[in-house]
Amino acid sequence: MFIIGELINGMYKDVRNAIQSKDKAPIQKLAMAQLNAGANALDVNVGPTSIDPKFTMKWLVETIREVCDLPLAIDSTKPNVVEQGVESAGAGSIINSTSADDERLNTLLPLAKKYNAKLIGLTMDKDGIPKDRAKRAQLGFKIITSCLDYGLSLGDVYIDPIILPINVAQTQCIEVLEAIRELRLVSDPPPNTILGLSNVSQGTKKRPLINRTCLVMAVANGLTAAILDPLDTQLMEALITAELLLNKNIYCDSYIDAYRKK
Amino acid sequence: MFIIGELINGMYKDVRNAIQSKDKAPIQKLAMAQLNAGANALDVNVGPTSIDPKFTMKWLVETIREVCDLPLAIDSTKPNVVEQGVESAGAGSIINSTSADDERLNTLLPLAKKYNAKLIGLTMDKDGIPKDRAKRAQLGFKIITSCLDYGLSLGDVYIDPIILPINVAQTQCIEVLEAIRELRLVSDPPPNTILGLSNVSQGTKKRPLINRTCLVMAVANGLTAAILDPLDTQLMEALITAELLLNKNIYCDSYIDAYRKK
Repeated sequence: MFIIGELINGMYKDVRNAIQSKDKAPIQKLAMAQLNAGANALDVNVGPTSIDPKFTMKWLVETIREVCDLPLAIDSTKPNVVEQGVESAGAGSIINSTSADDERLNTLLPLAKKYNAKLIGLTMDKDGIPKDRAKRAQLGFKIITSCLDYGLSLGDVYIDPIILPINVAQTQCIEVLEAIRELRLVSDPPPNTILGLSNVSQGTKKRPLINRTCLVMAVANGLTAAILDPLDTQLMEALITAELLLNKNIYCDSYIDAYRKK
Repeated sequence: MFIIGELINGMYKDVRNAIQSKDKAPIQKLAMAQLNAGANALDVNVGPTSIDPKFTMKWLVETIREVCDLPLAIDSTKPNVVEQGVESAGAGSIINSTSADDERLNTLLPLAKKYNAKLIGLTMDKDGIPKDRAKRAQLGFKIITSCLDYGLSLGDVYIDPIILPINVAQTQCIEVLEAIRELRLVSDPPPNTILGLSNVSQGTKKRPLINRTCLVMAVANGLTAAILDPLDTQLMEALITAELLLNKNIYCDSYIDAYRKK
């Protein structure tokens, strides 16, 4: 499982305050905490209220780069902010994200190519987020073929079938879970799939429980990556155990500690 | 999810002691505790060391029947003990279990028919437990067709693809999980599937975590019944949440309490 830590996001108050006061310490602390908790990459999002998002992205990336060299997932809807992020972050960055719209693909694929970046592709287009698994798989397939046509490697593309809050879109979780499985049929080896996990529990009273249950179900269906809070210990233990049961890690009595030391 | 409480089993010390001293109170307490925790049925097993298993089964069933009328899953490899159990327990009993062996089927199907009992069928035969999903599904299919040929209803048959301890058979969990999914293809509506959940964590140091992670994965694949410990609160919360995410219960902020009151 490729884990992208979600915590460096201007939507969170501590990060927003650090951005406003240009205080590096809280950002660097979050970067190191997520690294130590098992993150393979860090999401970087300036947040919805940033006045100069391009400048803020540059500052965030450079602040993180002072303490760690994990790949960064540059999380913005604005192509100029994305470009600033991948340029500052360097090789191995992840563009988060394109949709299946031709306009978005035509803008972001050249950026991915130019900066040798990986790409997260959301299964949505101008009609919005599909309501069923088949259309999600179809849009994922479109993104994958566009990427391959453009010369990107299959392994550098992550398809996100878009999990929605269970309290407002209760019929959609199973569609997402089954879309993950259907996307595995696209190629051998199958393409990567990813979820922005926390969205499933947005606005609910049982966020950690819902998050970890959803993650385990998605892993059972073949999910290969997730954007999540790696500091949630029970979430990480559920993930490690799910992968153990799928025979991806070798059992020993202390398999959780062994995974963490890895 | 049809939940069969596993705790009335002579393998556990408190139950064994109660059997030996013919002390009804601990048995009746376990029955009521499991009922109150959400069990839809109770497994009854005299344990491996019982000297007169037929008599003990009768005593256990009658002891439980003094306090509750939940269906009982009569859990024994001995046909005469099974018959004593289903006769004493009455309508709606569950025979736990047959295998796919013709000899076992020819013995237990007439009992199921005679006592109007449901039947758990283990996907194993004289060659033992299969190592792969396909053979498990094939043996499940054989049990189902035998039951239908004999006049049982599809809804009264539960196929158990046999989960094994993860510490000694690490390749087998994914085969079981995928067998659950393959068995759904046998008919529409699909047949019931069941797991004796706790076996997956036998001998490990993280039993509750492994149990609940395995259960959530199995539910994602379509499991419809399980033999488990309903007093494990975190296990039950994981189960309720998994079913919520599959849109089987309606979301409300207090969905766990709402499920329990149901």
